[in-house]
Amino acid sequence: MTATLMDGRAESRRLLDETAVRAATFARTRGRRPCLATVLVGDDPASRTYVRMKVTRCAATGIESRRVDLPAETTTEQLVRVLRDLSADPLVDGILLQHPTPAHIDERAAFEAIAADKDVDGVTGASFAAMAFGGPGFASCTPAGILRLLDAYEVPLRGRRAVVVGRSAILGKPVGMLLLARDATVTYCHSRTLDLAAHVAEADVVVAAVGRPELVRGDWIKPGAVVIDAGYNPGNVGDVEFEAAAARAGLITPVPGGVGPMTIAVLLSQTVEAAHHHG
Amino acid sequence: MTATLMDGRAESRRLLDETAVRAATFARTRGRRPCLATVLVGDDPASRTYVRMKVTRCAATGIESRRVDLPAETTTEQLVRVLRDLSADPLVDGILLQHPTPAHIDERAAFEAIAADKDVDGVTGASFAAMAFGGPGFASCTPAGILRLLDAYEVPLRGRRAVVVGRSAILGKPVGMLLLARDATVTYCHSRTLDLAAHVAEADVVVAAVGRPELVRGDWIKPGAVVIDAGYNPGNVGDVEFEAAAARAGLITPVPGGVGPMTIAVLLSQTVEAAHHHG
Repeated sequence: MTATLMDGRAESRRLLDETAVRAATFARTRGRRPCLATVLVGDDPASRTYVRMKVTRCAATGIESRRVDLPAETTTEQLVRVLRDLSADPLVDGILLQHPTPAHIDERAAFEAIAADKDVDGVTGASFAAMAFGGPGFASCTPAGILRLLDAYEVPLRGRRAVVVGRSAILGKPVGMLLLARDATVTYCHSRTLDLAAHVAEADVVVAAVGRPELVRGDWIKPGAVVIDAGYNPGNVGDVEFEAAAARAGLITPVPGGVGPMTIAVLLSQTVEAAHHHG
Repeated sequence: MTATLMDGRAESRRLLDETAVRAATFARTRGRRPCLATVLVGDDPASRTYVRMKVTRCAATGIESRRVDLPAETTTEQLVRVLRDLSADPLVDGILLQHPTPAHIDERAAFEAIAADKDVDGVTGASFAAMAFGGPGFASCTPAGILRLLDAYEVPLRGRRAVVVGRSAILGKPVGMLLLARDATVTYCHSRTLDLAAHVAEADVVVAAVGRPELVRGDWIKPGAVVIDAGYNPGNVGDVEFEAAAARAGLITPVPGGVGPMTIAVLLSQTVEAAHHHG
């Protein structure tokens, strides 16, 4: 292995420590702790685990969490009402709707029911536009976490070729927009891309974000490239064939311990930021 | 020249004819014509010309226009107020803020003052998100016009390499999102891209949208590629070196008479659509 590992655990700890200090300052001056509402629909075990991790991390960081667990048969209309109520609640600073939601839910409609200034997970259209156009608003957490990791390792982006594999609304599309805002030349690849290997082979920075185990083969990686694996598949397997990619890359994120920890840290950091805005 | 010209005048005429029929139906059933408000700040001659062209075309298509001409020294706050008032006016169906606005105006803030359901020019963040995520909303007019032209000439997009040169909020970024939604593999190039020629040389579809005369050289074009020139520079010069590109391309848009006429046609079509929604 030639690549240096990008240590998401260490970076996220730094951000969480800083966030805990800001949360304590907020609590001292405002007489209440910042508050993140988590909304979970149904009982998907992985989603339950993610919510539990977030709640635990909130507690450790001095952030209150308000858990709203809804039954699997919740309708889009009911979910939208819950999210609107939380958006109007002055004691709630940030709102996280755990996704994916059950298939019968119109997830986009649900996301859009979250007030922009509480969208600390960066899932609304307004947040996406803010990422694309550089206005005020919260970034999607995983994309923002990826940019933080790249910055922590001083990866140059200006003029570099970045290839984003995946085009989801909360990961692929926004991370591409953030890289574009940093002057990378950005290519979006996806399931219909005909020659994925050729695109990846030209990339200075690869972001794999599709959720397909080891879709990105190690021997596609350009020697010295930076490889960000945002995939997380059963059995701790990422979207990148790790060993083979690490033998060629300059920098690479492990799975787990790379992108994953950054996501939660950004979420909590943005929650405290939202609290400061709300007052 | 080997390329077939993509006739934006003919395509736009088809769309305008269809729009005129829909406008007439609306007027007959609702007792008023659809109404587009045009807002112009300052006295830039090109902008005045564009607004006049739009107003003339509205009249010819059975759409009422309400012209709001503001002095060059209008502040962002004043402009925002005007746009909010128009957004609230039940007799206005669509709102066009002619851009670019004078340099002292916060153009993004002004755009965002336009109600999403009257944003027939597709400039708000909500419209951009709708283009990216496929929700309800109006597309930016030039990008939507480009897609209409591609469809009119039955250009396959799925899995094809599309290179967008330019990343503006109202042209480059949205046209990339529309191409991505149609399953193209999309690369955004811009002023910081190091090897523009190499990117263009691999493209099945090139969209030039930077406003720099003949930036895209003819000998970069892959033989048989589709070349869309959305640039419009003084002296009827596009962003593509036309003669040399036409000698290699399969399809190419002329300047003028290619993308330009599509933009106005889409604007009017979306105005009538907005009117039908408002009722």
